[in-house]
Amino acid sequence: MDANTLINEFELPFQLYDVLDTEQLCEHDRFSEHSRQTFDATIETAKKIATDLFLPHNATADKDEPKFDGQKVSMIEEVKVAFDAFRNSGFIAGRYSFEDGGMQLPETVMTALSGYFMAANPATTAYPFLTSAAINVLMHFASNEIKQAFVPRMLTGEFTGTMGLTEPHAGSSLADIKTTATSHEDGTYRIRGSKIYISGGDHELSENIVHLVLAKVPGGPAGVKGISLFAVPKYRLDANGEVAERNDVHLAGLIHKLGYRGTTSTALSFGDANDCVGYLIGEKHFGLRYMFKMMNEARIAVGFGAAMIGYRGYQYSLAYAKDRLQGRVAPNLKPEDPAAAIIEHGDVKRMLLAQKAYSEGGISLCLYGSNLIDRINTCADETQKQELSELLDLLTPVLKAWPSEYGPKANDLGIQVLGGAGYTREYQAEQFWRDNRLNPIHEGTNGIQALDLTFRKLWQKQGLGLKVLQQEITRDLTAITTPQTAKLAKKLTVYIEQLQPLLQHVGQTLTTPQVDTLTANAQALMNIFATIIISWIWIRQASKAEQLLVLTEDSDKQNFYQGKIQAAKYFIDWELPLIQCDIELLTNDNSVCSDMQPQWF
Amino acid sequence: MDANTLINEFELPFQLYDVLDTEQLCEHDRFSEHSRQTFDATIETAKKIATDLFLPHNATADKDEPKFDGQKVSMIEEVKVAFDAFRNSGFIAGRYSFEDGGMQLPETVMTALSGYFMAANPATTAYPFLTSAAINVLMHFASNEIKQAFVPRMLTGEFTGTMGLTEPHAGSSLADIKTTATSHEDGTYRIRGSKIYISGGDHELSENIVHLVLAKVPGGPAGVKGISLFAVPKYRLDANGEVAERNDVHLAGLIHKLGYRGTTSTALSFGDANDCVGYLIGEKHFGLRYMFKMMNEARIAVGFGAAMIGYRGYQYSLAYAKDRLQGRVAPNLKPEDPAAAIIEHGDVKRMLLAQKAYSEGGISLCLYGSNLIDRINTCADETQKQELSELLDLLTPVLKAWPSEYGPKANDLGIQVLGGAGYTREYQAEQFWRDNRLNPIHEGTNGIQALDLTFRKLWQKQGLGLKVLQQEITRDLTAITTPQTAKLAKKLTVYIEQLQPLLQHVGQTLTTPQVDTLTANAQALMNIFATIIISWIWIRQASKAEQLLVLTEDSDKQNFYQGKIQAAKYFIDWELPLIQCDIELLTNDNSVCSDMQPQWF
Repeated sequence: MDANTLINEFELPFQLYDVLDTEQLCEHDRFSEHSRQTFDATIETAKKIATDLFLPHNATADKDEPKFDGQKVSMIEEVKVAFDAFRNSGFIAGRYSFEDGGMQLPETVMTALSGYFMAANPATTAYPFLTSAAINVLMHFASNEIKQAFVPRMLTGEFTGTMGLTEPHAGSSLADIKTTATSHEDGTYRIRGSKIYISGGDHELSENIVHLVLAKVPGGPAGVKGISLFAVPKYRLDANGEVAERNDVHLAGLIHKLGYRGTTSTALSFGDANDCVGYLIGEKHFGLRYMFKMMNEARIAVGFGAAMIGYRGYQYSLAYAKDRLQGRVAPNLKPEDPAAAIIEHGDVKRMLLAQKAYSEGGISLCLYGSNLIDRINTCADETQKQELSELLDLLTPVLKAWPSEYGPKANDLGIQVLGGAGYTREYQAEQFWRDNRLNPIHEGTNGIQALDLTFRKLWQKQGLGLKVLQQEITRDLTAITTPQTAKLAKKLTVYIEQLQPLLQHVGQTLTTPQVDTLTANAQALMNIFATIIISWIWIRQASKAEQLLVLTEDSDKQNFYQGKIQAAKYFIDWELPLIQCDIELLTNDNSVCSDMQPQWF
Repeated sequence: MDANTLINEFELPFQLYDVLDTEQLCEHDRFSEHSRQTFDATIETAKKIATDLFLPHNATADKDEPKFDGQKVSMIEEVKVAFDAFRNSGFIAGRYSFEDGGMQLPETVMTALSGYFMAANPATTAYPFLTSAAINVLMHFASNEIKQAFVPRMLTGEFTGTMGLTEPHAGSSLADIKTTATSHEDGTYRIRGSKIYISGGDHELSENIVHLVLAKVPGGPAGVKGISLFAVPKYRLDANGEVAERNDVHLAGLIHKLGYRGTTSTALSFGDANDCVGYLIGEKHFGLRYMFKMMNEARIAVGFGAAMIGYRGYQYSLAYAKDRLQGRVAPNLKPEDPAAAIIEHGDVKRMLLAQKAYSEGGISLCLYGSNLIDRINTCADETQKQELSELLDLLTPVLKAWPSEYGPKANDLGIQVLGGAGYTREYQAEQFWRDNRLNPIHEGTNGIQALDLTFRKLWQKQGLGLKVLQQEITRDLTAITTPQTAKLAKKLTVYIEQLQPLLQHVGQTLTTPQVDTLTANAQALMNIFATIIISWIWIRQASKAEQLLVLTEDSDKQNFYQGKIQAAKYFIDWELPLIQCDIELLTNDNSVCSDMQPQWF
């Protein structure tokens, strides 16, 4: 088994240049200095750093997780080496302008290259990725002064960043956060409160850590409308902007997770001595809106990461299945016949094909989402820009929830392919499975995503996002010219035709007493909606593969295209029809879950 | 949260005395000394030992797993204390005759009481349970001399037992085992070979360990027909039957598992010095048949254990959901309104109801299976006995595979209910999930179970088992007198009516070239078959609950019965219709998985 192959060599080029037209982005001013060559070279660098410096300590960092001695957090040295290599590559600033010291790369390419890091070692990758996410917020909403203080050194990785949303008592219910920010005569604020599950909340990888913290300024409106956003550094900066004394923010303790064990997950205490300086970002009370504006990217990152961990489990179990000899396959069933590689067994093929469908489906979906961001950013037509933005908003819960639901399913099948070896810690299949188990929860649980879709995103701007989505799907299905994909498209059409009346019914239900059934059945609607989207995403891949199959003489490429077509068939035949059950549930306002009373459990 | 409540107080009485008629067994000679009172007292003892001595170290044994210093295996002391209490309770001999020092308890009761141990601490429970399984084989097939040597001290737990089937290179393919047994002039054999994944293969809990080992006597037939079974003790016995010198069987190493970490999983080396004494059990070359005869019980035990770990996760997340306040529910949605317990949220209800349907469905199924063993054992009519035996054989793959597929699904939802807390090791939800991940693999992977069903069990004795199953289902559905359950039965009938033609089609496919599709699609057939059975199992529960609901004034019992009815509705509405997809796949001989070529991955 070649454990060093993180991604099949044909996968990213196929997604970027055949399924998507990423090269076309170079026609825009923003990316005019780029070409397929510069994209590929950048991805190649990512591959090299990920393979050489992230992959080798993935298992080690899981076994020997960060420790807190009451003063400092320590971790295995390989994390810092890998983090520094990432910093030095310039990837943290990858998406930003040349003038900011960035590489001015499209989101599509940034997402693609991130795949190597997520496949190699999601826990170490979290440190630079969280920093990118924090930069994104500061870049958009912070004053020039605050930006100047923090962003340049975050872009180089000298400073890292975190997102401090969740509090111990409130979880997903941000309306109820209790952290306060009191204005100080020097124009800054004093922060006081506790945050929990803050990834990367303490470590010694960087000179400073900039926490983006949601807090309430006393006297503001109740609920989510009274939340403001603050930059709270671990170390204050002196008059020259240099790192100075400790700020009053402290590590209350490390949280011990089941996966992503190499990433510190922290409980942080702000203002125990009432001296925690925070800087207001943007306007008071707009904090949650700022955060949510940045959620699209963050949620694509979680979805893509989940797909990549799923993909790594798929590749790992695939290598095992090719290598492991066991049992026999027809017609050679005699005891004297040699044992077959388990990849020859029908049930193993099924489990590998499902993993392929789940993980590559998620990868392709998230690259489509990233590409949408590039299309929005490069769009000159304001109407079209608005339409694409609505589409992205609509897809965001799916981009987060579907890959983080199905990536872990792939990892579960990865364990099963290994049999007894799969449940031992001597093999990594179980680590992938544990790592991926965080993804359905963090960055908004998948339950929250389903509610977001059902109660908000579908109806936003009079359902504009949905209209645009339907146009995109129709355009793709109409353009199909190849016979195998045409059959798949026909099967999908049966479900698409049911979607419109179903959504009309759901929309009407929102204003009736049956709305209660929808809070309980939102996951069923997410299943339907996401499965139709992934079917379309698979048809896009199959269509391109079927076209390319007849144009190449390279048998490796032919095999790759055949695999794509077969995985699309698997998804359409084995997974898509399952949503018929969900369609019935919603059509009939099924109230089994909403009728259930707490005392009946 | 009351972490000490392992099983809802109404659950086992409902299953044993309402759904099943366990008391009726006391009319038979074998159980005539028993009554509901003795059954309940025995279960109460199990509950007490499990709660007091097994539950408290469940998390500890997971964190501080057994260690091997090259000489001996050590583990935390609580395991031995718990094991000794189990021994002293007499439960190891529970199912055996009074004359053998047993309690002469029905399988149904033995399974029920085992539920407390599995819920409390599956890893420690494995030691006595594996011993019971080994006793079962010896009791049925060993010569009196061998029985005399080992069984009495195994029944008291002075000796423990293991099952040594799997070898490193062969996995599920027992035909390919290489361990040899050479006959010795003293009538014993010399065993030589390696076994892997042997649970309880070494430890200091007992004075001796009796390994039941599959090996080949040179010169025998190739494949599975040449496998014999041997008893191989860790320590030899002297002329007086006392424990003497070490036998030549050694611990090659401990395997580090992702779950069940408190149970030693071992690689064992037999005959390194060519001096490993083994005793032939029964006839030469009949070893695999003996093992499989005992598989029914062993597989019910795995299925029931998986259901109980699922149930524990359900109860754990249920307690959390009642306790945890977060967010608001209609009509109290204002920020000033108090936060609601998360059990009030629709999506949380859905996740709890699914857990209830999965775990209690598995519990009820396995108790039905155990009761079938009692019905077989007490049956005077030879024809009926044969019929029931065929039914048990047919159900065995389902008894193992369905609960071990859906128990882990329950544990996954248990994590999700806890949100961020669910992915931390500060809470136990993740341990249940890890522990249960072994169950779809060991004691025959679920893939093997699906093949066993598809290629063997359905057709055995001209499909007699299936005919008996249909009679049992028809009898239950016809007897329904209550309106809510009648509706559920009507929904199930739609699928039952499709089963007969489908199985006819599958049966025909077995002799056509399309048989290849069946090796890849066997899991789909398992889904269909098992889901129909679980639907029936839920209708049995709902029917009884609906009858009892109107007969009681006790509001706690009313709530319990309402919960049963609602969980049945959940399963029939939300899970049963999913098999329509599988029915189409098999009806159309879907060849997506079997067509997939290894080089296309």
